[in-house]
Amino acid sequence: MTHTPDIKRPPKAWVDKLRAAGTANLSGTLAHMGIRSVHMVGPVSRNPGMTIAGPALTLRFMPKREDLYGQAEYDDPEKQLHRHVLYHAQAGDIVCVDARGSLTSGIFGEMMLTYFKGRGGAGVVIDGCIRDYPNAKDLGLGLWVRGLTPNFHTQTDLMPFAVNEPIACGGVTVMPGDIIVADDDGAIVVPVGLAQKLLAKASQEHGWEDFSRERLAEGGDLRRYYPLSDAARPEYEAWLKKQGKAKKKR
Amino acid sequence: MTHTPDIKRPPKAWVDKLRAAGTANLSGTLAHMGIRSVHMVGPVSRNPGMTIAGPALTLRFMPKREDLYGQAEYDDPEKQLHRHVLYHAQAGDIVCVDARGSLTSGIFGEMMLTYFKGRGGAGVVIDGCIRDYPNAKDLGLGLWVRGLTPNFHTQTDLMPFAVNEPIACGGVTVMPGDIIVADDDGAIVVPVGLAQKLLAKASQEHGWEDFSRERLAEGGDLRRYYPLSDAARPEYEAWLKKQGKAKKKR
Amino acid sequence: MTHTPDIKRPPKAWVDKLRAAGTANLSGTLAHMGIRSVHMVGPVSRNPGMTIAGPALTLRFMPKREDLYGQAEYDDPEKQLHRHVLYHAQAGDIVCVDARGSLTSGIFGEMMLTYFKGRGGAGVVIDGCIRDYPNAKDLGLGLWVRGLTPNFHTQTDLMPFAVNEPIACGGVTVMPGDIIVADDDGAIVVPVGLAQKLLAKASQEHGWEDFSRERLAEGGDLRRYYPLSDAARPEYEAWLKKQGKAKKKR
Amino acid sequence: MTHTPDIKRPPKAWVDKLRAAGTANLSGTLAHMGIRSVHMVGPVSRNPGMTIAGPALTLRFMPKREDLYGQAEYDDPEKQLHRHVLYHAQAGDIVCVDARGSLTSGIFGEMMLTYFKGRGGAGVVIDGCIRDYPNAKDLGLGLWVRGLTPNFHTQTDLMPFAVNEPIACGGVTVMPGDIIVADDDGAIVVPVGLAQKLLAKASQEHGWEDFSRERLAEGGDLRRYYPLSDAARPEYEAWLKKQGKAKKKR
Amino acid sequence: MTHTPDIKRPPKAWVDKLRAAGTANLSGTLAHMGIRSVHMVGPVSRNPGMTIAGPALTLRFMPKREDLYGQAEYDDPEKQLHRHVLYHAQAGDIVCVDARGSLTSGIFGEMMLTYFKGRGGAGVVIDGCIRDYPNAKDLGLGLWVRGLTPNFHTQTDLMPFAVNEPIACGGVTVMPGDIIVADDDGAIVVPVGLAQKLLAKASQEHGWEDFSRERLAEGGDLRRYYPLSDAARPEYEAWLKKQGKAKKKR
Amino acid sequence: MTHTPDIKRPPKAWVDKLRAAGTANLSGTLAHMGIRSVHMVGPVSRNPGMTIAGPALTLRFMPKREDLYGQAEYDDPEKQLHRHVLYHAQAGDIVCVDARGSLTSGIFGEMMLTYFKGRGGAGVVIDGCIRDYPNAKDLGLGLWVRGLTPNFHTQTDLMPFAVNEPIACGGVTVMPGDIIVADDDGAIVVPVGLAQKLLAKASQEHGWEDFSRERLAEGGDLRRYYPLSDAARPEYEAWLKKQGKAKKKR
Repeated sequence: MTHTPDIKRPPKAWVDKLRAAGTANLSGTLAHMGIRSVHMVGPVSRNPGMTIAGPALTLRFMPKREDLYGQAEYDDPEKQLHRHVLYHAQAGDIVCVDARGSLTSGIFGEMMLTYFKGRGGAGVVIDGCIRDYPNAKDLGLGLWVRGLTPNFHTQTDLMPFAVNEPIACGGVTVMPGDIIVADDDGAIVVPVGLAQKLLAKASQEHGWEDFSRERLAEGGDLRRYYPLSDAARPEYEAWLKKQGKAKKKR
Repeated sequence: MTHTPDIKRPPKAWVDKLRAAGTANLSGTLAHMGIRSVHMVGPVSRNPGMTIAGPALTLRFMPKREDLYGQAEYDDPEKQLHRHVLYHAQAGDIVCVDARGSLTSGIFGEMMLTYFKGRGGAGVVIDGCIRDYPNAKDLGLGLWVRGLTPNFHTQTDLMPFAVNEPIACGGVTVMPGDIIVADDDGAIVVPVGLAQKLLAKASQEHGWEDFSRERLAEGGDLRRYYPLSDAARPEYEAWLKKQGKAKKKR
Repeated sequence: MTHTPDIKRPPKAWVDKLRAAGTANLSGTLAHMGIRSVHMVGPVSRNPGMTIAGPALTLRFMPKREDLYGQAEYDDPEKQLHRHVLYHAQAGDIVCVDARGSLTSGIFGEMMLTYFKGRGGAGVVIDGCIRDYPNAKDLGLGLWVRGLTPNFHTQTDLMPFAVNEPIACGGVTVMPGDIIVADDDGAIVVPVGLAQKLLAKASQEHGWEDFSRERLAEGGDLRRYYPLSDAARPEYEAWLKKQGKAKKKR
Repeated sequence: MTHTPDIKRPPKAWVDKLRAAGTANLSGTLAHMGIRSVHMVGPVSRNPGMTIAGPALTLRFMPKREDLYGQAEYDDPEKQLHRHVLYHAQAGDIVCVDARGSLTSGIFGEMMLTYFKGRGGAGVVIDGCIRDYPNAKDLGLGLWVRGLTPNFHTQTDLMPFAVNEPIACGGVTVMPGDIIVADDDGAIVVPVGLAQKLLAKASQEHGWEDFSRERLAEGGDLRRYYPLSDAARPEYEAWLKKQGKAKKKR
Repeated sequence: MTHTPDIKRPPKAWVDKLRAAGTANLSGTLAHMGIRSVHMVGPVSRNPGMTIAGPALTLRFMPKREDLYGQAEYDDPEKQLHRHVLYHAQAGDIVCVDARGSLTSGIFGEMMLTYFKGRGGAGVVIDGCIRDYPNAKDLGLGLWVRGLTPNFHTQTDLMPFAVNEPIACGGVTVMPGDIIVADDDGAIVVPVGLAQKLLAKASQEHGWEDFSRERLAEGGDLRRYYPLSDAARPEYEAWLKKQGKAKKKR
Repeated sequence: MTHTPDIKRPPKAWVDKLRAAGTANLSGTLAHMGIRSVHMVGPVSRNPGMTIAGPALTLRFMPKREDLYGQAEYDDPEKQLHRHVLYHAQAGDIVCVDARGSLTSGIFGEMMLTYFKGRGGAGVVIDGCIRDYPNAKDLGLGLWVRGLTPNFHTQTDLMPFAVNEPIACGGVTVMPGDIIVADDDGAIVVPVGLAQKLLAKASQEHGWEDFSRERLAEGGDLRRYYPLSDAARPEYEAWLKKQGKAKKKR
């Protein structure tokens, strides 16, 4: 019987904070921590406006070789590894797939994605395609994919090869259990070992950003307001006080 | 005078059934019938949610050679072959164009597409671009294209070369009169000679799919419900009976 | 101190007329004037339905070389050239960026774009990406970009190199002060020296196009109505008269 | 029985003169005659130093569709169209193949190429690969190909589709019977209808080129010698006289 | 201490027979056995005329992530996995590397390749580059690579990740211990489990091929001689007898 | 009259030492100095075995715009900027060209290259093509190019735009006067401001490399000899002494 390893999941609090931080904040901060780029290039959001975060279940496809994948898998679906990655799904999980950028392989279809959603899955990030999008788009799952196709997963050039092993997705290495964050800017990997340090750094937010945004939107001087100059600090502090009063009034 | 051949059209019943079946169902079934992939990679839907099906009128572009395409065509629009493919248009037809993946050639503009729509055309599948999209998008035509451009059809590298001859579109061979089916998953070719056999196979639908989908959405076990296991069959039959009653009540 | 040149802006009347003409009309007409293709291939609209026109402020990125871009720029944001192009922004300007097609560099983020909008900027055309799209998309700026990324502008392979110098964007040469026009069909460059002649040519509109469109939509003959044949001219003139009456009645 | 059309061959004198002129001379002259580019991009010489010219026999491949190419072709090799293009071979012919740039299809192997050589074939220009190169390279045929592969012609994605019909090879349209010229700079198409005019133009050689080359090689001034300036003409004429004497002496 | 698994090596007799058969013969025969394509597209021979065969030691690179590869590997070369694949080298082995097609990573340089040659290595097949080619080309190793670069292996985007695990090289799955065969047509994988069956099939050589080649080279009819027709069989048998006599005389 | 700036040339001694060091040594050392990659990807050697080094004269091409490049340049060759970069040529110079990777533009032909050679030019590095290769290959110039074409420099999509200004060539920024080094591994840029420091670092050669190479070639242990282990040092010193004696004997 096919057996594949499960992953170790990070504390939910980390995941929630990472989701709130957003990919632009996290990717930039990780770069300053020495991790050049965690942006998976290729998969793009098919649910504009949605943000998800969660631990990565991983699935690796390889070029199909007919002596390694064939009749046995057709006869006994239980041998198909793309099912097994879903068996591990828990609430909030994200399935991350190295599908080698294929535009002719639909990694999951509606039934599989329905099952994943039923198990509480947050979404999928696939360097490749899904199929059955006309139905799948309404499931409420996050869908970051390179494209769409009517073909099934092993129809042309690929075969599923490994579950919860390291993969390369969109040019980035993803370890099982790393944390995926995805929004309209794209999908990134947060190495789980760096998550706490990252959150500490990324949370040192510039309190003045809301103030500056307001001023810039009114035609304020970029040099004065972004980053906040010493000259503008008194103005900012006055604004802060006013904000406080405004909040109290409400 | 320019003369181009017409196509032989399939029975409307076939077309209607193929449209209802959807591309994912058809592509997968054709694969099991030995046709590796009928998905035209490149053209994507510009009318999300729309599904079309119909016989293929074909148009083949070739690299422009100034001794073969030039002043005569500018002086006498009747010599321009991209008009002639539209002259054959009947209600429900789909124009399928090998535009060599060009991103700088707008195969049809608003006026041509308006004419095609006026003739009852169902849509276009172009391995290339259209122009005038700001107006064309509201015509109600199905538009599967690789991109958009303001350039006209022979502005840069291409010239129209043949009408209703075999073409390669998105990496798939399309014969004039083959049946195109297109939805959000993409556009496929159904070889007309296989249409009946395909419909016979594809229509052997799994009656239990609606039942299984419901169970999976509630967190049911994939092994039990997809494909339907023997263990779950009594549960399915009970569900079926209930469904029947529910329908009667309505 | 960093100093970069400003541009010479064209008369607002030209810009308004070019915007009204639309990219398909202008690109085709320029082709007939001997300018093969002005369509910047790559950047696509992220605000479907929006049309913008305005003079080009230009920004050129180059491959990052660590001896030419480094600590000084991090320590003193005023040295970062992508800020300086925005300092020149006036109402109606468009920032056009050669970002070398990079999919891992977010040329501008929300704060920069907010400032640009605050200054009256009309939009950006970038052969590359922006970041912070979840926020930036609601600013009301025109956004023609190749993609989205959470990475910042110098995070991976690029460095800003020159402001208001000639650039190549999407395979087209853009001179500072040339006029950009962009809509759903894409973004084009109108060489400023040709603008007047172009407007003269493009404005010789075919008065019969509205008539013909109407007829074509009803299933009228393409040969008869597009272009308008001599045979159909009396019909067109009758239609014109009727239109006149209709207008008077209103 | 399979029947394919033959081509009309140009006078041998034209072919000989075109071969002598070389591709750089011809391509440049054709550009000045209004034919933008006749260089087939992709196929490169596998016999450095060889130059060939001859009429084009053409072969068109299409994406394989299993209902259109299959058992019948395996059972009866006579049905394989890539054989039929060779049946037309006469001394000096060149086979030009649209193999869609495929790097996994070996259009011809050693036996086919041996037959073609035996018939007097001059060479092949293939937008794709040949196989059996270890043996084929020694046949003395001109080989302009995109790559090499051990796979046979229909092993992966292609099927032969038409013989001596118009093709697109390396981004250039080739009509059956057009004249191919190929050397280390690449392979070009000379439209047969333009051949005479081209030869007239291309043969107006600059008599001073040998003189100028000599001077430039010695460090002479480009402005003075290329193109030949009026100032350098007397020097050239003196050189000419000397050359004449030198020749007489020999 | 780093430990990586060794491979199981096939009988030398198999390897010798496969090398003698050549890639074109083997790839075609495997296709007829149901293995669509074993040609690794990308790596090309840098030693024209050389043929090698041997068991595959495999090395897998992944996108560099600075938290997974860094100072430790620089401080202690023994941690660098690309060394470890070479530690397993035995006479006749071939190192097969998934370097992700990178053109900026030189997987091995002269010293490593010298060591590998010293151990009896037959050659390398790399979907990527080597460095130090000016020196490495004279070592007598088979070199099938995608390109050359002066950069070292982890200089830009990659890190070595696994030794003697399954890899994808040039779009083909290679299992550790599979047999690589490479010649001017390219490099292929022979699945070790199919080697014996393949040899049985591929060795059923057409005895008439030498005869037919001779006839074709003289201008003989393709239909008559390839494949050998019944009509030509008596001629072939006469030729055979003569050959026999000729051999005896020698 | 067209005027373009000259460059400042580095001391010949630096150039000679850099040429002797080779690209692999220099690129690796620069990486350790913080310059990620100086390898220009694309241009490859067409003179196997040749190594050149010298200061960069730069030439920048831009996408052709017919209003910016046209009749004037055809009428007066002196206006063609690709001539002007050659006017600056001094003995040992290298012309480095951003030709935007074009495969249909032959930047220089035989006459231009002959002139450049006559002036003492060392070679060209072009992210694009040359033409007239059949003649140019024998000039003795170093030729690092992406490809070959019979087309002339402005025949299709490009126009020369600037001389001795910063360019991007093969994905690397090159400043006029930077030092180019090129061999079979490819062409690299040495930022002139780093040259001295680089030479100091790169010249700290490992004296033991010749010794180790010898041992490795004999099957010696990689761990022992590369890098040289403490355990092997006495052996190395013995070898050194012997070498000394051997040299004296000669």
